[in-house]
Amino acid sequence: MEWATMRRTQFAAAIEADAVVVVPVASIEQHAGHLPIDTDSQTCFEIARRAAQATQEFPVLVLPPVWTGYSPHHMKFPGSITLEFKTFLDVLTQVARSIAHHGFRKILFLNGHGGNTPVVSGLRTKLAEEDGVGAVGINYWDLPGVPEAMRRICPVDGGSVGHAGETETSLQLALRPELVDAANARWIPGASGDARAASAEKGRALLDAIVPALVAYLRSYHDGTLEKTFDWTEKVSR
Amino acid sequence: MEWATMRRTQFAAAIEADAVVVVPVASIEQHAGHLPIDTDSQTCFEIARRAAQATQEFPVLVLPPVWTGYSPHHMKFPGSITLEFKTFLDVLTQVARSIAHHGFRKILFLNGHGGNTPVVSGLRTKLAEEDGVGAVGINYWDLPGVPEAMRRICPVDGGSVGHAGETETSLQLALRPELVDAANARWIPGASGDARAASAEKGRALLDAIVPALVAYLRSYHDGTLEKTFDWTEKVSR
Amino acid sequence: MEWATMRRTQFAAAIEADAVVVVPVASIEQHAGHLPIDTDSQTCFEIARRAAQATQEFPVLVLPPVWTGYSPHHMKFPGSITLEFKTFLDVLTQVARSIAHHGFRKILFLNGHGGNTPVVSGLRTKLAEEDGVGAVGINYWDLPGVPEAMRRICPVDGGSVGHAGETETSLQLALRPELVDAANARWIPGASGDARAASAEKGRALLDAIVPALVAYLRSYHDGTLEKTFDWTEKVSR
Amino acid sequence: MEWATMRRTQFAAAIEADAVVVVPVASIEQHAGHLPIDTDSQTCFEIARRAAQATQEFPVLVLPPVWTGYSPHHMKFPGSITLEFKTFLDVLTQVARSIAHHGFRKILFLNGHGGNTPVVSGLRTKLAEEDGVGAVGINYWDLPGVPEAMRRICPVDGGSVGHAGETETSLQLALRPELVDAANARWIPGASGDARAASAEKGRALLDAIVPALVAYLRSYHDGTLEKTFDWTEKVSR
Amino acid sequence: MEWATMRRTQFAAAIEADAVVVVPVASIEQHAGHLPIDTDSQTCFEIARRAAQATQEFPVLVLPPVWTGYSPHHMKFPGSITLEFKTFLDVLTQVARSIAHHGFRKILFLNGHGGNTPVVSGLRTKLAEEDGVGAVGINYWDLPGVPEAMRRICPVDGGSVGHAGETETSLQLALRPELVDAANARWIPGASGDARAASAEKGRALLDAIVPALVAYLRSYHDGTLEKTFDWTEKVSR
Amino acid sequence: MEWATMRRTQFAAAIEADAVVVVPVASIEQHAGHLPIDTDSQTCFEIARRAAQATQEFPVLVLPPVWTGYSPHHMKFPGSITLEFKTFLDVLTQVARSIAHHGFRKILFLNGHGGNTPVVSGLRTKLAEEDGVGAVGINYWDLPGVPEAMRRICPVDGGSVGHAGETETSLQLALRPELVDAANARWIPGASGDARAASAEKGRALLDAIVPALVAYLRSYHDGTLEKTFDWTEKVSR
Repeated sequence: MEWATMRRTQFAAAIEADAVVVVPVASIEQHAGHLPIDTDSQTCFEIARRAAQATQEFPVLVLPPVWTGYSPHHMKFPGSITLEFKTFLDVLTQVARSIAHHGFRKILFLNGHGGNTPVVSGLRTKLAEEDGVGAVGINYWDLPGVPEAMRRICPVDGGSVGHAGETETSLQLALRPELVDAANARWIPGASGDARAASAEKGRALLDAIVPALVAYLRSYHDGTLEKTFDWTEKVSR
Repeated sequence: MEWATMRRTQFAAAIEADAVVVVPVASIEQHAGHLPIDTDSQTCFEIARRAAQATQEFPVLVLPPVWTGYSPHHMKFPGSITLEFKTFLDVLTQVARSIAHHGFRKILFLNGHGGNTPVVSGLRTKLAEEDGVGAVGINYWDLPGVPEAMRRICPVDGGSVGHAGETETSLQLALRPELVDAANARWIPGASGDARAASAEKGRALLDAIVPALVAYLRSYHDGTLEKTFDWTEKVSR
Repeated sequence: MEWATMRRTQFAAAIEADAVVVVPVASIEQHAGHLPIDTDSQTCFEIARRAAQATQEFPVLVLPPVWTGYSPHHMKFPGSITLEFKTFLDVLTQVARSIAHHGFRKILFLNGHGGNTPVVSGLRTKLAEEDGVGAVGINYWDLPGVPEAMRRICPVDGGSVGHAGETETSLQLALRPELVDAANARWIPGASGDARAASAEKGRALLDAIVPALVAYLRSYHDGTLEKTFDWTEKVSR
Repeated sequence: MEWATMRRTQFAAAIEADAVVVVPVASIEQHAGHLPIDTDSQTCFEIARRAAQATQEFPVLVLPPVWTGYSPHHMKFPGSITLEFKTFLDVLTQVARSIAHHGFRKILFLNGHGGNTPVVSGLRTKLAEEDGVGAVGINYWDLPGVPEAMRRICPVDGGSVGHAGETETSLQLALRPELVDAANARWIPGASGDARAASAEKGRALLDAIVPALVAYLRSYHDGTLEKTFDWTEKVSR
Repeated sequence: MEWATMRRTQFAAAIEADAVVVVPVASIEQHAGHLPIDTDSQTCFEIARRAAQATQEFPVLVLPPVWTGYSPHHMKFPGSITLEFKTFLDVLTQVARSIAHHGFRKILFLNGHGGNTPVVSGLRTKLAEEDGVGAVGINYWDLPGVPEAMRRICPVDGGSVGHAGETETSLQLALRPELVDAANARWIPGASGDARAASAEKGRALLDAIVPALVAYLRSYHDGTLEKTFDWTEKVSR
Repeated sequence: MEWATMRRTQFAAAIEADAVVVVPVASIEQHAGHLPIDTDSQTCFEIARRAAQATQEFPVLVLPPVWTGYSPHHMKFPGSITLEFKTFLDVLTQVARSIAHHGFRKILFLNGHGGNTPVVSGLRTKLAEEDGVGAVGINYWDLPGVPEAMRRICPVDGGSVGHAGETETSLQLALRPELVDAANARWIPGASGDARAASAEKGRALLDAIVPALVAYLRSYHDGTLEKTFDWTEKVSR
């Protein structure tokens, strides 16, 4: 269910059912010459949306993607937008506090942009300890099982999500082929990975791996299993 | 043209043509029992999108709506999300700085949520003086000619944009009727104005007034006329 | 009663009587070649002081003017002082919190400088929601009835408060003629409105309109009428 | 000369003459049962004003007192207003930056409230190193020669400026006797020193010591002698 | 060479030789019942010190450990000290800016506390883009080759650095056996990993793996090899 | 007892006994050509350590020195590190809050660097009023009795602690002679006082005066006597 298009009368049931709220976090930033500027935002949101639909046992609500991400290293290429590090942290913190204010106890920041990783990976401890809010954060390419799938499906890039390379280009070819300028898909500054190796078929295979991985992750978060993996090793070392 | 779906190769021409960049600023907040949570964001974005399409003489680029708005007074109703006042200011400032960084000289913050008004109305001076960035900010319901049109088309609410009342409900009935729970459209806490007076026809009439008003505003911004109205009266008193 | 010259023993009765505390907010900034730098501060403070004296039914306490305002757009002319946007907000917030800390429940920020408007207009919601403090903010030239009076008394400037023009110059000619360099009253950069049309008589007529308007506003704030006008239309749209 | 009542045309000569700008920094805070709330602000401002008038060789401009000081420890008594520590620092920093922006090279923060001392004493290094602004800060009771005079004139309080005690009460009896509730001048919580020992005569004697001490300090600042006393001992240890 | 005990005359040669400056970043936080509070700080500093001594080709300067780390999740156990997330970021940023100010171009934040990881991992991009400072950050247990060594040497904890478990306890038994209360080394809340499996011998083996790994890392940083690994994959995905 | 090398099990007794926690605050900054960069940190820490050992009636815990001090005025000489004014305040505030969180009620910031004085002298009021934390702050050279001892022992510098002069150099000659480059001890930019007059003997005499002065201060803090000296004179004037 998409949070944005719900009416205020529709939240009570979701809160009651201990819904998981997914906040896609991404960017508006250059993606070489062949991919649209909002590649990270749309990919991440679409993965979240499909996983939410595929999860039947409990409600999963998906917010609109936070497209105001952390991309200062992309600013030399036109179209990129970035917040400062601390403002980006403030935005995610205050979005989480708003969600928790309404009674939700489980927030999953699903990250779709590498530059956001440091902040997103720190959110669990920061929100729990400084804000009293329960949340977890993970890159979609780090979901359990996904790295292996990526290596298998996109061997040219060797399992790295890269940037506008084999993986991201394949995903966009599967999701929004009309926005991909395939003729321009090649190695150039500002990209990482080889877009020429991309295909819509690979993109569909990736989605077939990532979406179920997210569903499994949501389930483990909802039923408490995930918390147990955050034992003191994680709590203390992360 | 939608900024989000452009590729990085497509910005140079727009910068060269002194494009106006429209940043829709809105909210994710409760809209009584009958309207979706993202009413302000979608209405504002759609108005901007239509005006951009209708402007042929120079490019108008429309960013995705900034849905992380200032709505603390809505937090007692579920679904509302809010930033703090200063973080909201930081976000708009840094989005503007990013846009200006690429060479754009004209940024229009088109506001669609009343709670954002104080910050948006202060952006012109703040960005010019503290950040060296050229921008203007206006509520869509304050565009020249629009207040009169609203009074004429939505007489029950008397020309006020209200909240989930005659005006906003009519606009959503015209734009996304499938998301309006008309059976619940009535006076209740958290609303302002009478949603029962709304109709899709009124919504279309409003759009027919607002979109051309925005086009005219964009033109006056692009050709320098608007700046002249910001004489010392405005510069000093606003 | 002037807050500044009271002794600590004199506040209990005022708190008990649910006094309204007026905080004049203004600036130290250039006012063309003929008006003193503190025109906004003194005008605003004097209006507040007179209204306080004219209100007999309940106590009205007037703080010294906050002369550290927001005037970055005046910095190219000597004598202007400005805070940054966020610091200005912090100052007003913390002054309000201090007042409320002592038990006062009604704070009126009376603004006398156009550049402060965005922050002052946002204070009501910001203080109520983020700080739990009751306050309202209004420009003295926007008090009910005043715009009409200004148009009538100062027709050359057409009802605008301008800057160092017909209105402000008339007010200073009525309040502190010895500080006005009438020979220099003319259209120049850094001014708005036509100071040549000013007169002490007009200034007195303006005060005769503004002071009672403020008294009426104070009464409506004290007796709860004003709050009713902040219904959901205002609460949500402003 | 009072900065506040100057016109913008009057600053060029002062800048040219390397004027010293005095910023009185004080408070609005309870002063026991017998002194007005703005005792620190008025005392400090009046000392600055008199010293400015007594200095003929070069212009001395006096700003209005910064009455938004640091007084959290007085908040348990009604009437006190305080900023937070960091906001108070921001205000003084931005006032200084504004003054320096116009070309003034010598700013003297004359402090009249003990609670402000830590921030004021740190301004010289902070402004020089972080903001590139030349300034010094001193308490009026620490001006060279003043401690000895205070011990001599106010022996009961032993040379301490105290709070609403012999010294401050004497100064107010000399400056504004009509605002002193002498019948209430006694030892009570929230005071320091013995107000019963105060007299207008002592107050006049204090002013006769403090004002010339400030004049001498201004001269040593203006002619460069003062800077030499800020040798490495001071530069490094303060 | 230890930065702290150098004299100011000794830096010029190091700057000239393009020295690498290592900033150990750690914590003061509880380490179960058997390890001292500063375990992370001392371990990290000692590793850095030994690697600096072992690097002969170019100077490596080691700052004192930044013991004011990010440990809010340890605050329920006595002795732990923590900064807030944003202050911790500020401290590392300003330390880096100070180092770069003197002309050093290569700063390595060597992290010894898991809770610091999100901030440290984000420093490279943040410092490069927002501050213009060259730096890298890495956990000592993530240095190339070290994870494998840890798995081999400390099989009970399976290669995880844990917290006060097999790895950290072994390291402290090797470095400061007199501070380890071996009788209390066991599984308890606030620990991760099995301290009972620790030994000084394992600790020495760990140091024999980690110190050379850091030397190799320093060399690759100094000769430019490391930068090449931060290609667009890393630049964009991290 | 050194806080850093304690185990978490060792704090309960200290808290129970109302221990005083000493936080040495100093710097990493140039100390002319003959003293090590960490002179202030080591001197201050060593004084605290010796005083803690000499205090038998109640526990005194000594944290590691906060070496991230405020030294912007030293940045022109290599090796100096500085925080910004507000970050330095944040660090000390958060360290104090962490200590108080565990139940300690008495924190003594012992300052060893003149540039830190403004912040440290403001901590008592700031922490008490804004953070609810009990603390005092003092420079080691301002401890009761120490100024007289310094004048007697180091007559060349006239009782000033200076910077890298007679006093500091003597202290380092007593504490760490191997790090002093006596051949370079002379008047030069960046120093204050005459290092040529220094001797290890003087340093030992200084320690013999300072350490007992600190012990006495700790005792008066622990038994409540010190608080009584912070009567309203101090509370209001400092």
